[in-house]
Amino acid sequence: MPRTIDHEARRARIGEAVWRLVLREGVGAVSLRSVAAEADLVLGSLRHSFPTKAELLAFAMSLAHERAAARVARHGTEPDPRRRVDGALHELLPLDDERTVEMRVHLALMAEGPRHTELTELSDAAHDAIAGLCLSCVHELRAAGLVAERRDLDREALTLHALVDGLALHAMQDAGRRAGVVRALGEHLDALAD
Amino acid sequence: MPRTIDHEARRARIGEAVWRLVLREGVGAVSLRSVAAEADLVLGSLRHSFPTKAELLAFAMSLAHERAAARVARHGTEPDPRRRVDGALHELLPLDDERTVEMRVHLALMAEGPRHTELTELSDAAHDAIAGLCLSCVHELRAAGLVAERRDLDREALTLHALVDGLALHAMQDAGRRAGVVRALGEHLDALAD
Repeated sequence: MPRTIDHEARRARIGEAVWRLVLREGVGAVSLRSVAAEADLVLGSLRHSFPTKAELLAFAMSLAHERAAARVARHGTEPDPRRRVDGALHELLPLDDERTVEMRVHLALMAEGPRHTELTELSDAAHDAIAGLCLSCVHELRAAGLVAERRDLDREALTLHALVDGLALHAMQDAGRRAGVVRALGEHLDALAD
Repeated sequence: MPRTIDHEARRARIGEAVWRLVLREGVGAVSLRSVAAEADLVLGSLRHSFPTKAELLAFAMSLAHERAAARVARHGTEPDPRRRVDGALHELLPLDDERTVEMRVHLALMAEGPRHTELTELSDAAHDAIAGLCLSCVHELRAAGLVAERRDLDREALTLHALVDGLALHAMQDAGRRAGVVRALGEHLDALAD
């Protein structure tokens, strides 16, 4: 196996072990020892990559954000602007188990913010990235003639961002809300043309 | 001091001690022993009211919801419909330290949901209460002629709810966003007339 793939696989193994611990036992259960056991790694080898619990938590949060960003980026090649926007924003909604796990991990680690500055910085960076994505979305829709001229794009981007985050929270709490959440977002985007 | 006031004060003292522990040290730090110390109560006396950690956590979450509901209810006497709606919904946004603490506690305890069924049930009940409030709000605004006839009130209530939750999350993460969040909500409510 090439070294970079090996390295990526090891990172995923560690990050996902932290996720499982966070979801199963809570952030309080995360330690170098518990993660080494969960990832089936030798403690010394884990400590070499992540010397502290704080670094493990920060890495686990980054991994969730990286995964979401990689999925969003894949929609960049979709030629239809509205389908591109729908596709990208749906990646931020917990519409399947993978995205639900990511969002639960993100929220659980965000709740640790008061004790771990890095986690607050990472969740602020994720917030800014989504704010930027929402701004691109409304600009692309405007360029495609899908946003009424009277609408201010900065304000629409801020509202869209809050709506996506609120809908994500609702779908995370109850998978039965997934279809309603997709419909609500679609109707909101449709209404930008008015 | 009358017995009911005494009882309420003791409940607040215990609930707020749990909140402080959750925010300062995380949910993992909550135990009968740590809460008794934080609330300056004898352990046996605390155990008499709350025999288990699960009951303490559930009570701490309920207290946050009760406080928010009591503040919302106070706006019921405002005669102007739009001011009544603004007033009630602003109580759900972390626009001051009190509401920020409540929301941080709510999210930290919600993240414990996978391990504590009662906390999931309580956050579902809070979700339903806010859904009901948002539905009342759009009905009241419609009755006052402030929602266009073409708009479906169930859908508008769902979108309003997601928007309020998303805006609350944004204001919680950064107090510098409070004014922008209030303005975004106001503009969303204004636009219901179109």
